Amino acid sequence: MSVVMLQQYREKIRTELDGVVNFWLTNSHDTKYGGFFTCIDKKGQVYDDLKYVWLQGRQVWMYCRLYRTMERFHKQEILQAAKAGGEFLRQFARVPSDSTTWKCAFCLTKDGKPVKIQRSIFSECFYIMAMDELSRVTGDKDMQAEAEQMMDHVIHWVRVDPSELGRTKLPGDEPINSMAVPMMLLSLVQQLTEERDQDLVEKYRETGQWCVKKILQHIQRGGMAILENVSLEGAELNGCQGRLQNPGHALEAGWFLLQFCGTHGDESLQLTAISKFIELQFQRGWDKEHGGLFYFLDVDGHCPTQLEWSMKLWWPHCEALIALLMAYNNTKKPTLLDRFSEVYEYTFSHFSDPENGEWFGYLTQEGKVALDFKGGPFKGFFHVPRCLYMCERILDGLLGDKN
Amino acid sequence: MSVVMLQQYREKIRTELDGVVNFWLTNSHDTKYGGFFTCIDKKGQVYDDLKYVWLQGRQVWMYCRLYRTMERFHKQEILQAAKAGGEFLRQFARVPSDSTTWKCAFCLTKDGKPVKIQRSIFSECFYIMAMDELSRVTGDKDMQAEAEQMMDHVIHWVRVDPSELGRTKLPGDEPINSMAVPMMLLSLVQQLTEERDQDLVEKYRETGQWCVKKILQHIQRGGMAILENVSLEGAELNGCQGRLQNPGHALEAGWFLLQFCGTHGDESLQLTAISKFIELQFQRGWDKEHGGLFYFLDVDGHCPTQLEWSMKLWWPHCEALIALLMAYNNTKKPTLLDRFSEVYEYTFSHFSDPENGEWFGYLTQEGKVALDFKGGPFKGFFHVPRCLYMCERILDGLLGDKN
Repeated sequence: MSVVMLQQYREKIRTELDGVVNFWLTNSHDTKYGGFFTCIDKKGQVYDDLKYVWLQGRQVWMYCRLYRTMERFHKQEILQAAKAGGEFLRQFARVPSDSTTWKCAFCLTKDGKPVKIQRSIFSECFYIMAMDELSRVTGDKDMQAEAEQMMDHVIHWVRVDPSELGRTKLPGDEPINSMAVPMMLLSLVQQLTEERDQDLVEKYRETGQWCVKKILQHIQRGGMAILENVSLEGAELNGCQGRLQNPGHALEAGWFLLQFCGTHGDESLQLTAISKFIELQFQRGWDKEHGGLFYFLDVDGHCPTQLEWSMKLWWPHCEALIALLMAYNNTKKPTLLDRFSEVYEYTFSHFSDPENGEWFGYLTQEGKVALDFKGGPFKGFFHVPRCLYMCERILDGLLGDKN
Repeated sequence: MSVVMLQQYREKIRTELDGVVNFWLTNSHDTKYGGFFTCIDKKGQVYDDLKYVWLQGRQVWMYCRLYRTMERFHKQEILQAAKAGGEFLRQFARVPSDSTTWKCAFCLTKDGKPVKIQRSIFSECFYIMAMDELSRVTGDKDMQAEAEQMMDHVIHWVRVDPSELGRTKLPGDEPINSMAVPMMLLSLVQQLTEERDQDLVEKYRETGQWCVKKILQHIQRGGMAILENVSLEGAELNGCQGRLQNPGHALEAGWFLLQFCGTHGDESLQLTAISKFIELQFQRGWDKEHGGLFYFLDVDGHCPTQLEWSMKLWWPHCEALIALLMAYNNTKKPTLLDRFSEVYEYTFSHFSDPENGEWFGYLTQEGKVALDFKGGPFKGFFHVPRCLYMCERILDGLLGDKN
């Protein structure tokens, strides 16, 4: 592939990132109560004012990351929006209960009243991401400390005792190793230790290694499949749960592992990440008939029970773009760039909306827009800009300059 | 429409009911642990052995109802299967906690260990349906008493104090009137009091009237819309939740109301049920382009946030067939029979599987089979046979004979 082609990709990706940032700066800020609206229709209008904590945290993180690391986004408007989002989170996201002061709500009213609490770790994880990244741009040490303290609680819930999460222990509900959990923790370890001092790196070293081990347990069937759920010992589980594949998640885990290798240096792990989590899973997850990545698959070819299994969602495509380009960058293996181009073509011709900006999130198997909003309860300012940001930076590296 | 046409419908429906009953008798019984497998693929093979309590209860109810009221199903095989299902439920479904002994699991392992408990009333409701109907065929008074006691607890949770359900009370989570709840309770009142003595009828009279009042609160926008969620006072709610329409649910509520009118006699209520819950909602919910009923709609035309909003599910079509035929039976208004024919044509040509029996449950908006299993976590031996059973009986009445 020619340098000209890579330059064209970068140009398109850069323009797209500018447009996406602008879409959220223009449409998502709640100037009355603080925080961000995330239910935003195809033209940019707010159609629901609930505030989802995952998406609040992700938007703060993404704004700060852009502000901190890309010169053209080092703007007061972005910093102020991130600070306002962070303030809203600190004021309202944590919902103290009898058992802990560290659980966060999943969803808040526009003025910050808790609507729902999930019995999982993810609201807290995105809270940590937001606070750590925001503390890097503001220098707020208290905020950094809060992120670390919450991280320690999340690790405790995952590795020692989940009872504060509020789930009733039931005899038929054996704990499992669900890919989302070690993936999420690994990305937090990377976040918290990036460019921090050696003490902090040491503090989380073992947790990072544990996450890698737990992620690798998902390689099953003699290396021929990545399964979304396995037992705590790394064995295949019975039934639909055990046969479930989530190609987007595996691809995302793939580039998380590559990032980890980048920091820690581990050639054998890099090989595994690329061959299993990226190449194999892309091969399995790509719809040969209509293009695009399936959302869920059953490893034995049964029909998944998730109604949306055959839909094409924006975020697996975002993860595929990052994973394939990062894998190419690490290896210069041409087929990886070919796959990247294939996903790039599908993604920009199907998800991106040149008319009103931003991306559609949900297509039918055949590639028709099925839900036409730009933001919803699970789609905010995160996967699209993170993908564009990561790809632009990798392309900068590949093209050997920063302009 | 000619009598010949109605006879053809009845013949087809009767044959289809025989086939569906046979499909579940053949494929769903767990002869080792008792109860029913409900995850059954297109050819009848079990692809997951979890036992969903809603579906266990519904299958017991349906078997008993067929056994008790239709001569050709008055067979030992069906009675024994219903009893075995009832035993499995009684042995395993209730999961005592510190606060109550009346909560049921949502899902059990094949040998009866609880996997998940929902913080809602529906597992208990289907348990009640099963026990009441089973007690009618076996004459088991203890079982009937258990059904009534559980009913009293459910009514308490809904109308007095939900705290035993286990939901944390949150300031942003105002209680709402969700259509499913009064609908479900109304159908249980009908179930428990059918052909029972006057004391029992009296006991549940006020609850039945309360349910009707709560269902009627869902008529909104000056009578021009049925909304799925309203406030406890019957006002429209803010946001997506408030604008949500679920045509299948409204049609089901319509025929529940008609049944209630049949028992209690109320001409004005019958008019409302037909014009609002059935005619209006059918009109709103029918996809003029591709045919079939949408699963969810937003009353203001926004895109719903449910990924499956535009899919065509089997059960709204089952409810539409019952509602339209019952409304026609009550009024003899020709347009109602025309609508019934329209749904009949769509349903039998899209959902029914002449090759392997039973019905597919989930189609794309365009009518292609999207999930090809016959049973899943939410699709068991219930909506299809109940629809065929109800329609056959109504057609028997319309045709003036029982053969």
